[in-house]
Amino acid sequence: MKLYGYFRSSTSYRLRIALELKGIEYENIPVNLLESEQKGEGFTSRNPFGSVPMLEGGGRDRAQSMALIEWLDEAYTERPLLPADLEDRYTARELAYAIATELHAPLNLPVLKYLRDPLGHSQEEVGVWYRHWLSRTLDPVEARLAQLGTGDFLFERPGFFEVVLLPQVYNAQRFDFDFSDKPHITRIERACLALPEFQRAHPDNQIDSPEYNGEAPR
Amino acid sequence: MKLYGYFRSSTSYRLRIALELKGIEYENIPVNLLESEQKGEGFTSRNPFGSVPMLEGGGRDRAQSMALIEWLDEAYTERPLLPADLEDRYTARELAYAIATELHAPLNLPVLKYLRDPLGHSQEEVGVWYRHWLSRTLDPVEARLAQLGTGDFLFERPGFFEVVLLPQVYNAQRFDFDFSDKPHITRIERACLALPEFQRAHPDNQIDSPEYNGEAPR
Repeated sequence: MKLYGYFRSSTSYRLRIALELKGIEYENIPVNLLESEQKGEGFTSRNPFGSVPMLEGGGRDRAQSMALIEWLDEAYTERPLLPADLEDRYTARELAYAIATELHAPLNLPVLKYLRDPLGHSQEEVGVWYRHWLSRTLDPVEARLAQLGTGDFLFERPGFFEVVLLPQVYNAQRFDFDFSDKPHITRIERACLALPEFQRAHPDNQIDSPEYNGEAPR
Repeated sequence: MKLYGYFRSSTSYRLRIALELKGIEYENIPVNLLESEQKGEGFTSRNPFGSVPMLEGGGRDRAQSMALIEWLDEAYTERPLLPADLEDRYTARELAYAIATELHAPLNLPVLKYLRDPLGHSQEEVGVWYRHWLSRTLDPVEARLAQLGTGDFLFERPGFFEVVLLPQVYNAQRFDFDFSDKPHITRIERACLALPEFQRAHPDNQIDSPEYNGEAPR
């Protein structure tokens, strides 16, 4: 498989974690979002959404990260990301889709750019916007985790929820979001980052990252 | 089952269509978003997201519309919303999740309110914002439908994609979005609205709608 992505794109990061957790080999092909490579015709003819990640594999180019993750888990049944039990599946999806549907888009690069131009907002106002929407979804995610009595992961091992959570936390840290009142999210993040799958998927360990030190496994 | 929703909420509308298409009986309980009923403690103690729809059923309160729809389709296997074939499932989810993850949140009421206050934008600027994000996702959705050679529905009968598409189109029409260059979306919308399941789910036919004429079946 070939994963077209960008080291810092949170949806690309989701896919890297999902592929790593499932043990699926892939080639990482950087797409430079800052130079709008994803909007070039060579790219949009394959993916009309003009977005990363795009996964080439199984005879097809696929473009939407959540649809991709659901497909991966159905097509490659070993090391499932979603638990087997129906109620647990709902729980994992509730928390993952809260982040993916409510929170991701208002924080995504195109929206932040639009706030600056044409709407004319300052970087400080954009930061306030960013942290406002983070609280609005991560507060109830934390509350649900507390209700559920979560340990190091939502279930026994990291899966569907952690695939979506970790990239959002990474993103939030770049905007100085305060996680001190979120012990469950913080504990899960630490437990994930201790695992080699999450380390290999981390933005800093991608070849298009300025942090890349040449030692990452891909 | 009890569906807590608001007639005009597009995520509540998704759930009504899903329940109707699956033939699942439910009681519709209006929650007045304009009076912030969903933020009252009686509600948030059951649903920390303070959002509609909330579905009470199967011994649990469930809160996130996409997780709910995935759960409904797994728990009630008759009249599936997702097709059986893995590739078709990816296709349905790609288009549905494009709308649910990229498009829904920037158009949702809390974001539109925030643009007016504290950001101070006019109703006209909010309208430009709204139509900008609509184009950005509905243009590639239309392009994918053209690539796929779609008929009256994405597949033989309406399902997962139409559940998400119809509420977004209804919403867009309220903001005078121009669909004249979107023949595929327009044709699918018309074919859906000709069906009794979509008519019963329509916002105008809910008891909390000012359009309600007392003749809707619930």
